[in-house]
Amino acid sequence: MAGTDGMPAARIVTACMVVIGNEVLSGRTRDANLAWIAPRLNQIGVRLQEARVIPDIEAIIVETVRAVRGRFDYVFTSGGIGPTHDDITADAMAKAFEVEIDIDPRARERLEGHYAPGELNPARLRMARIPAGAALIDNPVSKAPGFRLANVYVMAGVPLIFQAMFESIRHELVGGIPLLSRSIGAEIAESKLADPLRRLQESYPAVEMGSYPFFRGGRAGCSIVLRSTDPALLAVTGEAVKEMMRSQGAEPYEADAA
Amino acid sequence: MAGTDGMPAARIVTACMVVIGNEVLSGRTRDANLAWIAPRLNQIGVRLQEARVIPDIEAIIVETVRAVRGRFDYVFTSGGIGPTHDDITADAMAKAFEVEIDIDPRARERLEGHYAPGELNPARLRMARIPAGAALIDNPVSKAPGFRLANVYVMAGVPLIFQAMFESIRHELVGGIPLLSRSIGAEIAESKLADPLRRLQESYPAVEMGSYPFFRGGRAGCSIVLRSTDPALLAVTGEAVKEMMRSQGAEPYEADAA
Repeated sequence: MAGTDGMPAARIVTACMVVIGNEVLSGRTRDANLAWIAPRLNQIGVRLQEARVIPDIEAIIVETVRAVRGRFDYVFTSGGIGPTHDDITADAMAKAFEVEIDIDPRARERLEGHYAPGELNPARLRMARIPAGAALIDNPVSKAPGFRLANVYVMAGVPLIFQAMFESIRHELVGGIPLLSRSIGAEIAESKLADPLRRLQESYPAVEMGSYPFFRGGRAGCSIVLRSTDPALLAVTGEAVKEMMRSQGAEPYEADAA
Repeated sequence: MAGTDGMPAARIVTACMVVIGNEVLSGRTRDANLAWIAPRLNQIGVRLQEARVIPDIEAIIVETVRAVRGRFDYVFTSGGIGPTHDDITADAMAKAFEVEIDIDPRARERLEGHYAPGELNPARLRMARIPAGAALIDNPVSKAPGFRLANVYVMAGVPLIFQAMFESIRHELVGGIPLLSRSIGAEIAESKLADPLRRLQESYPAVEMGSYPFFRGGRAGCSIVLRSTDPALLAVTGEAVKEMMRSQGAEPYEADAA
């Protein structure tokens, strides 16, 4: 698509998040990493376009990584890189990329510096298993590194560590134009706004307009979220949404967007 | 696999959850339906084996539904069935199943009973668009129904409505043997338990043993989650895990499992 200022718009840079973990699929753990990474990717112009939650089963990890790594510019995985027998992500990645895997001297050195002499037991050393050719991802929290193979970033599932790992690789990511957003809410039934909103969307096809109903304290409301790479267009359509809400008898307010 | 009592075990019944919504991928909304449905499926012997979060883009919805409906016994979708222009799930499902879609008289009747005369505007009527051949799913909250096409249950994204819809179809689902679980925690580093836990897993291959580290109030801990269809095996291995924790100097406690 062309930019509204006549300049060719930058290519859209995309990402997929793969959450690896039986504990998320069982409902035991509610994933927190997707909602954390999404706005941060967006800030640097990378759009999270899909997420998958898959079990700790090697064949499924291999198949999923192979399916998504060619379809998205970046793939971020979480989970399965700890010291226990059910942490199989590193071996599965090696298989997905058809490379060898063994104790990596760089990763081993990081762990040796972290544990007291004699404390680096076989289980802990397992966290130094890194596929051949991978770049390490720093782990400032507990040292055991993540790694990157081509466009796939393999990170820990524990949010504290996932976040620290992302911060350490964020500068490497090359994004496009960030998608800006604006959210305008009102206490009004979504279905009352639907017809005028459709007309507004037709008038401004370059702005993505989403409508999200909510119930708060027994009252129905609706948030309209506008997304565009063009701040001027966002300003114009934001005012149009407010005007539309007022014309339906509701008082609009600016809400947090993401 | 054969049951431990010599009886052939029932087939494993599987499910996939498809979360349809730009708002989840942007991080604006944190999905709550996956963590809600997972344990409820498990109670009736249906295992959630994968989840995907995809945008409100017709081609992607169509492709995803076609990809997963043959691979899992049940598919549950959330989102995109409201009255606004960005609610495109029903039309995408019709396309995925190659059936017609139009205002459904049964669905229209439900909406007519809900709204005051003259209030059923075109946007609201849009919620009566149901693919040909679909069975309706009751919506006790706001009447606009979900629907089922073959093994795909299409439901609302708003948690209150998603939950009510699931409760209304839950009796239709035919599960296998429920997977039971037990969670045992201790304030101990995961890497200290890893080697004995691996040996325990090797001794009891029929029990799935997962290890989940956590940080709470600055202290590191670890939960071992055991899963099996056999309560006796769960009892034996649970005691073995406690014994193992004590042998490493930690005091085990029973935690909530799911």
